[in-house]
Amino acid sequence: ATHFDFNHHSHRRFNPLSSSWVLCSPHRTQRPWQGKEEVEDAANQRPAYDSSCYLCPGNKRANNSATNPDYKDTFIFENDFPAVRQNQPNLGSFSDTNPLLKVESVRGQCHVVCFSPRHDITLADMTSNEILPVIDTWINIYESMRKNPDINHVQIFENKGAIMGCSNPHPHGQVWSTQDIPQGPAQELVSLAQYKEKTGGCMLCDYVKTEVDVMTKAASTASQDSDTTTATKPLAENPEGSRVVCENSSFLCVVPFWATWPFETMLLARTHLSRLSDMNETQKEDLADILRRMTCRYDNLFKCPFPYSMGIHQAPTNGVQEHEDLAHVHFHFYPPLLRSATVQKFLVGFELLAQAQRDITPEQAAKRLSDCSEVHYKAPVK
Amino acid sequence: ATHFDFNHHSHRRFNPLSSSWVLCSPHRTQRPWQGKEEVEDAANQRPAYDSSCYLCPGNKRANNSATNPDYKDTFIFENDFPAVRQNQPNLGSFSDTNPLLKVESVRGQCHVVCFSPRHDITLADMTSNEILPVIDTWINIYESMRKNPDINHVQIFENKGAIMGCSNPHPHGQVWSTQDIPQGPAQELVSLAQYKEKTGGCMLCDYVKTEVDVMTKAASTASQDSDTTTATKPLAENPEGSRVVCENSSFLCVVPFWATWPFETMLLARTHLSRLSDMNETQKEDLADILRRMTCRYDNLFKCPFPYSMGIHQAPTNGVQEHEDLAHVHFHFYPPLLRSATVQKFLVGFELLAQAQRDITPEQAAKRLSDCSEVHYKAPVK
Ligand SMILES: O=P(O)(O)O[C@H]1O[C@H](CO)[C@@H](O)[C@H](O)[C@H]1O
Ligand SMILES: O=P(O)(O)O[C@H]1O[C@H](CO)[C@@H](O)[C@H](O)[C@H]1O
Repeated sequence: ATHFDFNHHSHRRFNPLSSSWVLCSPHRTQRPWQGKEEVEDAANQRPAYDSSCYLCPGNKRANNSATNPDYKDTFIFENDFPAVRQNQPNLGSFSDTNPLLKVESVRGQCHVVCFSPRHDITLADMTSNEILPVIDTWINIYESMRKNPDINHVQIFENKGAIMGCSNPHPHGQVWSTQDIPQGPAQELVSLAQYKEKTGGCMLCDYVKTEVDVMTKAASTASQDSDTTTATKPLAENPEGSRVVCENSSFLCVVPFWATWPFETMLLARTHLSRLSDMNETQKEDLADILRRMTCRYDNLFKCPFPYSMGIHQAPTNGVQEHEDLAHVHFHFYPPLLRSATVQKFLVGFELLAQAQRDITPEQAAKRLSDCSEVHYKAPVK
Repeated sequence: ATHFDFNHHSHRRFNPLSSSWVLCSPHRTQRPWQGKEEVEDAANQRPAYDSSCYLCPGNKRANNSATNPDYKDTFIFENDFPAVRQNQPNLGSFSDTNPLLKVESVRGQCHVVCFSPRHDITLADMTSNEILPVIDTWINIYESMRKNPDINHVQIFENKGAIMGCSNPHPHGQVWSTQDIPQGPAQELVSLAQYKEKTGGCMLCDYVKTEVDVMTKAASTASQDSDTTTATKPLAENPEGSRVVCENSSFLCVVPFWATWPFETMLLARTHLSRLSDMNETQKEDLADILRRMTCRYDNLFKCPFPYSMGIHQAPTNGVQEHEDLAHVHFHFYPPLLRSATVQKFLVGFELLAQAQRDITPEQAAKRLSDCSEVHYKAPVK
């Protein structure tokens, strides 16, 4: 080979949000796998109601402190084993003593959001109408935390699947609200500010535009008869280069150019939206629509309830105008599977010690996801 | 409670090497675990030689391209499925086109290091005399890559255990040598430079001193009769505060103040040593000694072959004098287990989206590791 080919040659790509690099080694998928295989998730076989589940309606909770109401769509409550609490003593400062022993107290609140009374489904099985109350619950908890002067950041997330550390298969997510802006979102704000400083614009508005342009170009090139090699062309002009998975008028779902996890995606608001609570009715419906469609594609990829960690990045609730201006609503989906329902990618060794690394290109991943159907592989549950 | 207690109240600690925060929620260990449990590793039952293992002496390799020699201690070869390669076409620059599509070509070499011909053991089962050849192999590959003008960084690491993505249980590690200095080590060099700029000293030399001081103070306080509360005292003066696991005259093993993984440790050279190849004979023997003792403690903690990802950070091989002066040899051990041989900590959800998080304090982890024996729980294999 005399030409550099992104599908065969090692390269690293820069993640401008986290300000870090990811090594991409596309030829590596050929290596044989003799390592660990997951036993497939038994989610398909779960009952609609499980009397031993502490999230099902009417059941006692984990610590026996409360009984769940007979809820009909979503249900939110304070985590019985919270990582952070609203009330704890002050920490006298002693970081000064030694710069290597730097520590801060962290106050906050942790909530659990049940997505549905049904024990046997996930977001991917729900209609967009059923997803709407989940979005409303996210908006309400964010707005209530926003009024709390001790809370400056609200992290909404979901761990789906045992392989992603989910401790209960009942469809649910979490909300950890903290005094400090955590490392990840804080770094994103720094990156967004630097980009604005340099270009005057919003990085994520520009990124949406970039991905739509690439997609449009890819579609028009594909429709022409072209036998010229594309290996030396800029990736942005590569006809194989579209990273868009699906879209609607308010949101775009892409495998980001700098994706780390094999089938990582980002869900981006097409316009500059600082927080979910700023959405109008159409945007809300569009969000429910695209969440259903993309989680359904995920499930269809390996014909399994596709595990992931997902989270929402939006404006911090610290009341700082500059942060609110910088923030651009987006969701990150980090799914661990690589080859099948049972073979995952391990981000270990080199990844932990040196640099993130992936085996298939983001463009290959996007192609596979965009080839998936938006009708769920299982017969509808209801 | 009116006093802040590090064993009960949430706080975040700063990692000055990676320049990031970790949330510590010590009270959270009480939450019930209904999530995933690992099936225990069958490592105890492995045969000394496995005819289907592509790393055992005399066997054919994965791609059938070669046959392993009848090696007696260690054996190094080029990875048959390398993540990076020495020869690949140049990548024309097109990053300029769009700052959001930033990419670089990465050249390099990948090696596999078998630690022993025995299929059924791990570093924890080996004597320090048997570990010495492993250290020599690490030194030799580093020195040979150092002579290669296309290689600027050598990342030595080991994934131990199926749960850490190890694709073959035969005791082995890897070496990925690259043109670029990867993200993690690059960030460490930046942090070390900033610390030097500010204080004039080496961060890791100072950290060794800090941990030895804390340990000494803890020991002397423990030997006095003390009934005063320690909750408001600086952590550095907390009698429960020692984070040292074990030590010898050349190396110190600590659970770092900013540890992320439950039983994460750092192995630090006590003096300012830039690379393993600068060690004298005593230091080499001390390294073999402490590697045996700490991996043995790990195995004894939950009476299992303790899984981890481990890696060595030392001077880059780019010939830059400033980097060589800054580098201070250390090993990171990132083990996933939290409660037992089968219950791991998942760094998912909040951790991936917002900030690293841990459930037991580094001081509690250090206490448990330092209480472990240095005689392996299994009868010696040989
Ligand atoms: O190289 P191996 O052992 O096949 O693979 C293992 O280590 C690599 C380097 O840390 C990781 O990228 C892989 O995900 C892991 O399974
Ligand atoms: O809170 P859960 O569901 O009990 O626990 C899960 O999510 C948390 C937040 O991402 C993680 O810290 C835990 O490791 C994981 O098992």
